[in-house]
Amino acid sequence: MIPPGDRGLTLGDGLFETVLAEAGGLVDLAAHLDRLIAGCDVLGLPPPNRGVAEAAMREALAEASLEDVRAAVRLTLTAGSGGRGLDRPEALAPLLVATAAPAARPTTPARLIVSSVRRNEGSPASRLKTLAYLDNVLARREAQIAGAEEAAMLNNRGELACASAANLFWISGGRLFTPHLDCGVLPGIVRARVIAAADRLGRPANAVHAGPDALAGADLIFLTNSLIGLRPALLEPGKRLIADDFFAALTSALGAG
Amino acid sequence: MIPPGDRGLTLGDGLFETVLAEAGGLVDLAAHLDRLIAGCDVLGLPPPNRGVAEAAMREALAEASLEDVRAAVRLTLTAGSGGRGLDRPEALAPLLVATAAPAARPTTPARLIVSSVRRNEGSPASRLKTLAYLDNVLARREAQIAGAEEAAMLNNRGELACASAANLFWISGGRLFTPHLDCGVLPGIVRARVIAAADRLGRPANAVHAGPDALAGADLIFLTNSLIGLRPALLEPGKRLIADDFFAALTSALGAG
Repeated sequence: MIPPGDRGLTLGDGLFETVLAEAGGLVDLAAHLDRLIAGCDVLGLPPPNRGVAEAAMREALAEASLEDVRAAVRLTLTAGSGGRGLDRPEALAPLLVATAAPAARPTTPARLIVSSVRRNEGSPASRLKTLAYLDNVLARREAQIAGAEEAAMLNNRGELACASAANLFWISGGRLFTPHLDCGVLPGIVRARVIAAADRLGRPANAVHAGPDALAGADLIFLTNSLIGLRPALLEPGKRLIADDFFAALTSALGAG
Repeated sequence: MIPPGDRGLTLGDGLFETVLAEAGGLVDLAAHLDRLIAGCDVLGLPPPNRGVAEAAMREALAEASLEDVRAAVRLTLTAGSGGRGLDRPEALAPLLVATAAPAARPTTPARLIVSSVRRNEGSPASRLKTLAYLDNVLARREAQIAGAEEAAMLNNRGELACASAANLFWISGGRLFTPHLDCGVLPGIVRARVIAAADRLGRPANAVHAGPDALAGADLIFLTNSLIGLRPALLEPGKRLIADDFFAALTSALGAG
């Protein structure tokens, strides 16, 4: 249980990671902890001990009896309690908590809308996985109200940034595109793997500043995160997914097929 | 204590109010609850019962033995636990918690910087007092590192929006200015009282889209929130505050002198 004065609760002052567990293994754990620790540096929080973090995650898996199934392990790091209003206490005592839940891999394309809620490209938090996730919750809610499952978010310049809980890619004319990090994008771990795979295939990804028209004109849109891997997305409800060799090659290269 | 799966903690999915308590009275309580309930409507959360909220606040004051002093009572409303990832559960069970702490009124002008962290004018959350407050925490931290106490925040269009925990006003050539709400501004309760007082004085406030130069050229800058009332602010460390009759009249009209 968390104290009511914890700054993660009161101010969103903290970070999280969601790690895929498969058959008890924590997929890409080192990359997740690297990103969490880099985020601590940006926010001015003391980084967690890697061993302590891993032990907490493994304990959460064991407590939920999820060691043998596909599961999501969430690691939450807050700035802890103390301080006055926005001001942090002089001696920070961060709180680290891990929880685990079953995580099925989606087998259908995501129905996608373009949200009216903008991504804040002007804050360093837009490149981090922080507890201040409300804009994304609101974008997702907008998708659900529209009968869709995910929402693409534009930044305040009108450029595509990401989906509410995923990175965004599209293939157009045989080329692979994804929003540039400075559009207000979390450097996703699967995003990096896709970019590396595209390089190996000799068809490098283009990190771009693009408006929503790029999605409307794409041959294939797909979303990535640690839990879904690569998931195709459809902007129009009635549209059928068209098989794409490049997407198939990327999926195969990531072992996510 | 708060469950680790509470969406206020994990996603910033919730709202808060900070109410001034003086001699046991909750100042502007109705306006604070009005704003909280309006915010629930925007976020899609069931509004709290007013009587329950007030009782929780009075209980927090009593438990902290702060009924006879100047205190800050914080009311936090979260979307509660449940749901999968960003998706809320079908039946929301919001959590309401109140805490109280002593609150001295500042007696010196605030030293002010202009933060590099931008306000997200493109999200409805920028007009609400939400738990996703990290951008403001980062702006305040930037101020502290620079030896200042508060940070003015621009939005992504480069327009003044607010300070990290206050609304922003300035007087220039005898006229009163404040950022327009659509710059990404919380409709502050003291902000509204200042605007009403300026009207009564026959010198109406101008809600404007203005860049940071407006502050640099102002005769007087001041900050407002429920705890500080009206507090002058200085952009340059060495600068001395110049007495201003209009500011004195506003302060007097609000009984905040």
